[in-house]
Amino acid sequence: MSANHESLAAVNESTVAGLGRLARFVGFNEVMGRLYGTLLMSPEPLSLDALAGQLKISKGSVSMNMRALERWGMAVEVWVRGERKKFYEAETDLWKVIRHVLNSRERREVQLAIDVLSESVTKLKEAEGELTPEEKELSSFYLERIDDLRAFFIFAQMALETVLGGEESLDFDAITKIEIG
Amino acid sequence: MSANHESLAAVNESTVAGLGRLARFVGFNEVMGRLYGTLLMSPEPLSLDALAGQLKISKGSVSMNMRALERWGMAVEVWVRGERKKFYEAETDLWKVIRHVLNSRERREVQLAIDVLSESVTKLKEAEGELTPEEKELSSFYLERIDDLRAFFIFAQMALETVLGGEESLDFDAITKIEIG
Repeated sequence: MSANHESLAAVNESTVAGLGRLARFVGFNEVMGRLYGTLLMSPEPLSLDALAGQLKISKGSVSMNMRALERWGMAVEVWVRGERKKFYEAETDLWKVIRHVLNSRERREVQLAIDVLSESVTKLKEAEGELTPEEKELSSFYLERIDDLRAFFIFAQMALETVLGGEESLDFDAITKIEIG
Repeated sequence: MSANHESLAAVNESTVAGLGRLARFVGFNEVMGRLYGTLLMSPEPLSLDALAGQLKISKGSVSMNMRALERWGMAVEVWVRGERKKFYEAETDLWKVIRHVLNSRERREVQLAIDVLSESVTKLKEAEGELTPEEKELSSFYLERIDDLRAFFIFAQMALETVLGGEESLDFDAITKIEIG
């Protein structure tokens, strides 16, 4: 299918650009977002060549970023009858995409932060006997700050677990209908 | 106060590095996170020179990134008796920091996405009469995809409003105590 009409082309372009912007905003890169957008707005699976052509980027960049999209569960390779090239399709269940990202990326990052902060507490407690009075004062200041940070990350971890432990799928559609009418 | 003992220096360094990493992860830049961390782990306000010295970066970079931190409500300029230089202090209320970021950055980004998607719907509906049958099919495919995306962003908006409309302050501390003991 072709997006010949200027409105169709414009809508495609602004959706792809918007997802590129969003990807950058959440700490992925823009090309990943644009590739995901291109696949999402395509009724048929697309080859690496088609993606490179549509986004006017090198095939190497497409290939590298498609691997990243696959890792994040945002696209899958599909088999197309009679074709020997690799074809890709977007994961259209956005809730599944978000769960996958939160479950791997955010969860790991929060756990890492908690581990580093806990190690710092241990380190400070072990050093306690060796500190001068001035250093002791600084050490208890550090412990206070670290406690605040740790409290925040534990809160984030609880929020993540709540989201990830909830329903497998969320009915976004029902929500839009109430809101937009 | 000096962090002479190696454990104090190590804890300071790993906290600063961790906040740098976190800043990059959430789409800010690493220097902003490191500056915030340095201020957060300092019992006294710090000057631009002191920050540049501790982080071994140029004063220009410190100055630019400190302005960004101020804009995001993560640091404030303070007046130090007898000093003519600018001094800064970290905002230590992490909940306030997060509310500020969500309220400006995330809220604006989500609203922008909803606006762009709504414009796309209008554009497609206006063009409807001019489309060939094949283009009409593509147009209704686009509308479906855009509806999914819009539903997601409206969900995100509702979640943001819930967080931002809630309590002015969240007692992270109480939560840690239950969890970590």
